[in-house]
Amino acid sequence: MATSESESKGKIITCKAFVANAPGEPLVMQQILVQPPQKMEVRIKILYTSICHTDLSGWKGESEPQRAFPRIFGHEASGIVESVGEGVKDLNENDKVVIVFNGECGECNYCKCEKTNMCEKYGVNPMKRLMCDGTSRFSTIDGKLIYHFLNSSTFTEYTVVDSGCALKLNTEDILSLKKLTLLSCGVSTGIGAAWNNANVHAGSSVAIFGLGAIGLAVALGAQARGASKIIGVDVNPEKLTIAKAMGITDFINPRDEEKPVVEKIREMTGGGVHYSFECTGNVNVLRDSFLSCHEGWGLTILLGIHASPKLLPLHPMELFDGRKIEGSVFGGFKGKSQLPNLATECMKGAIKLDDFITHELPFDEINKAFDLLIAGKSLRCLLTL
Amino acid sequence: MATSESESKGKIITCKAFVANAPGEPLVMQQILVQPPQKMEVRIKILYTSICHTDLSGWKGESEPQRAFPRIFGHEASGIVESVGEGVKDLNENDKVVIVFNGECGECNYCKCEKTNMCEKYGVNPMKRLMCDGTSRFSTIDGKLIYHFLNSSTFTEYTVVDSGCALKLNTEDILSLKKLTLLSCGVSTGIGAAWNNANVHAGSSVAIFGLGAIGLAVALGAQARGASKIIGVDVNPEKLTIAKAMGITDFINPRDEEKPVVEKIREMTGGGVHYSFECTGNVNVLRDSFLSCHEGWGLTILLGIHASPKLLPLHPMELFDGRKIEGSVFGGFKGKSQLPNLATECMKGAIKLDDFITHELPFDEINKAFDLLIAGKSLRCLLTL
Ligand SMILES: NC(=O)c1ccc[n+]([C@@H]2O[C@H](COP(=O)([O-])OP(=O)(O)OC[C@H]3O[C@@H](n4cnc5c(N)ncnc54)[C@H](O)[C@@H]3O)[C@@H](O)[C@H]2O)c1
Ligand SMILES: NC(=O)c1ccc[n+]([C@@H]2O[C@H](COP(=O)([O-])OP(=O)(O)OC[C@H]3O[C@@H](n4cnc5c(N)ncnc54)[C@H](O)[C@@H]3O)[C@@H](O)[C@H]2O)c1
Ligand SMILES: [Zn+2]
Ligand SMILES: [Zn+2]
Ligand SMILES: [Zn+2]
Ligand SMILES: [Zn+2]
Repeated sequence: MATSESESKGKIITCKAFVANAPGEPLVMQQILVQPPQKMEVRIKILYTSICHTDLSGWKGESEPQRAFPRIFGHEASGIVESVGEGVKDLNENDKVVIVFNGECGECNYCKCEKTNMCEKYGVNPMKRLMCDGTSRFSTIDGKLIYHFLNSSTFTEYTVVDSGCALKLNTEDILSLKKLTLLSCGVSTGIGAAWNNANVHAGSSVAIFGLGAIGLAVALGAQARGASKIIGVDVNPEKLTIAKAMGITDFINPRDEEKPVVEKIREMTGGGVHYSFECTGNVNVLRDSFLSCHEGWGLTILLGIHASPKLLPLHPMELFDGRKIEGSVFGGFKGKSQLPNLATECMKGAIKLDDFITHELPFDEINKAFDLLIAGKSLRCLLTL
Repeated sequence: MATSESESKGKIITCKAFVANAPGEPLVMQQILVQPPQKMEVRIKILYTSICHTDLSGWKGESEPQRAFPRIFGHEASGIVESVGEGVKDLNENDKVVIVFNGECGECNYCKCEKTNMCEKYGVNPMKRLMCDGTSRFSTIDGKLIYHFLNSSTFTEYTVVDSGCALKLNTEDILSLKKLTLLSCGVSTGIGAAWNNANVHAGSSVAIFGLGAIGLAVALGAQARGASKIIGVDVNPEKLTIAKAMGITDFINPRDEEKPVVEKIREMTGGGVHYSFECTGNVNVLRDSFLSCHEGWGLTILLGIHASPKLLPLHPMELFDGRKIEGSVFGGFKGKSQLPNLATECMKGAIKLDDFITHELPFDEINKAFDLLIAGKSLRCLLTL
């Protein structure tokens, strides 16, 4: 299929972006300059973007060594390829794509190994703030550098990402593109954690700590696998209703309980769950997740981003009780090769992506969308550009 | 086969034992009283016993909450069943048995689950110091209670253990019994860690930290599985010779290296090993073991007993690099149902058990055997009763 030459191709684009200039300060709408894509990069016109808790953590500057400002946050998004850089073979102008922060080059030792979804080239590196060549594609009008975030940076009309971080979708339908935006991070991560990392089995018991989009996607993933008890734990009582709608069979608010939550879960499940998922980023919750699992065979999947320097609150000998713990990045999905299958399943209705879009706002109101997530009112607020 | 009524059956036996009266003090030879076996227990005449590092830790009283004196240590042993208590069906007088500290009742939820080798009834509980009914079978001549250790207590002419902690051997040959004593703990643990926990694959790379009997049994287990690089790490330079004889392909003494051992191992293996094994009980070594594994797919098996209250020196985010860590008790073997197969393999020569018997002494010289292990001179010193 021949693609029409775009007018902007090869040129610097001036466009609107919401830039974070300092930790925790409201994003500022600015005109920025976006350079053309370099070798193996693509420039994308963003159509939809949403906010994940990982954006909040970065924006708040919770992890000091990872701080970098000014910066364009955002890593959940979909859009249309505006132009491609030298060497890019699998993407073309006008392709509809979802951005994948955990990319896949397809050629490194990691990409060739079926045990991991890491990629040497385009995998997650929290310290990374520039493109692979050590420069940025973003700057202010007067030439001041603006940093990239998590291989993505989507709170902008145009962004540049590595071609390994953009997934072509088989859809001509703009409404599909809208909901498939959800697969960019949170929902894929949660489903994958249940399917790929834990490999939840039918009839099993599950405990999920933190019922944001990640935790609730875990719930849907576990439900799809036939788990018979799916316990949701959240300190926000407002999560009860949505939790029940998303497959949670038992809701616990630790603040309403007299007993410690670990004790309560062990009682409910005859000694502990088969699988638990930490989706809050709080180390105390991590310990609770671990101990809520059954001795001998319980498995905890760590999903929350732990920005504090606090170490794992576990003693080596506690590993002898047969509980296991593993981290999950992007739910174990290889970004480019394994996500299309998930997208197809979702389009068929296996997972109702629309349910995660609890709010919609125009791009201009992004700061309101931040507030909604911080207050725990939204799962995902979809911003339309 | 009819069994002859033994004269001692049902009566208290007076016999010789080496008792630990205080942390780290030489064991004292004493006459003790051994009660008859109660329900589901067996009384065993010990023929051979050896010393494992776990005995040293207990004897030194390294872990305060587990301290209990006077106590009879020892958990690697073989012997002959003197008499059986009520309800014991699978063992008879005169059966040749190996003692298994990690027992198997065959009926609890754990025993029925193939993912674990824990047992609700006879599994390892480091705090346990009495039989299941809360009393001891040992006392001094003047009636003072002596504590049990690790479901076993073998530094005595007679001991009483749960029937789930004694494995009947298919051997009439006393020489076989002698070498099969090694399967009681250390050697089974090491082999099982390689076979059951890590599931070492052909062509893989392995790093073993601590080359005592456990670490070297891991090496033989990994070699039997066809691992192509088996790196042994030990601070005792005298381990070099035995290491080479036991399958270690590369020996590292961290004290002789300018580079940190993690860096060295990563260089030797293109980024890290597939599997590492911590067999020292030192938390710093634990961290090195973990980081010596390859990102994405490396797996660390924790074997060392960590008596210090120090927590796991790992940050939650380090789990996102795809390295995994698991504890192994008794190499993942279910004590009674899976060990006979290993015994058969060993008798066929798959693993040369004799090589682990670096010293032999009469029972009376047990304190000398302690010294040999402490000094790192012996793998196992077999004591003959
Ligand atoms: N591993 C990955 O690949 C990956 C991907 C995306 C997000 N994340 C991380 O997953 C976590 C969840 O993300 P999200 O977008 O769903 O966030 P969110 O803010 O929407 O949801 C977090 C939920 O946790 C609850 N919570 C907070 N503290 C709690 C506590 N002490 N006990 C119980 N519940 C508590 C909150 O009420 C909220 O409902 C974040 O840490 C995020 O950075 C990880
Ligand atoms: N998990 C289990 O089921 C199980 C079973 C048996 C033994 N163990 C434990 O396994 C460990 C090993 O037992 P063993 O009988 O082989 O002990 P051992 O004393 O014979 O061997 C330990 C080895 O570690 C080496 N070492 C000590 N500190 C080191 C360091 N900093 N760096 C490198 N090497 C170091 C010593 O030189 C020695 O060669 C002990 O902690 C023991 O309690 C665990
Ligand atoms: Zn995210
Ligand atoms: Zn790659
Ligand atoms: Zn032992
Ligand atoms: Zn059992």
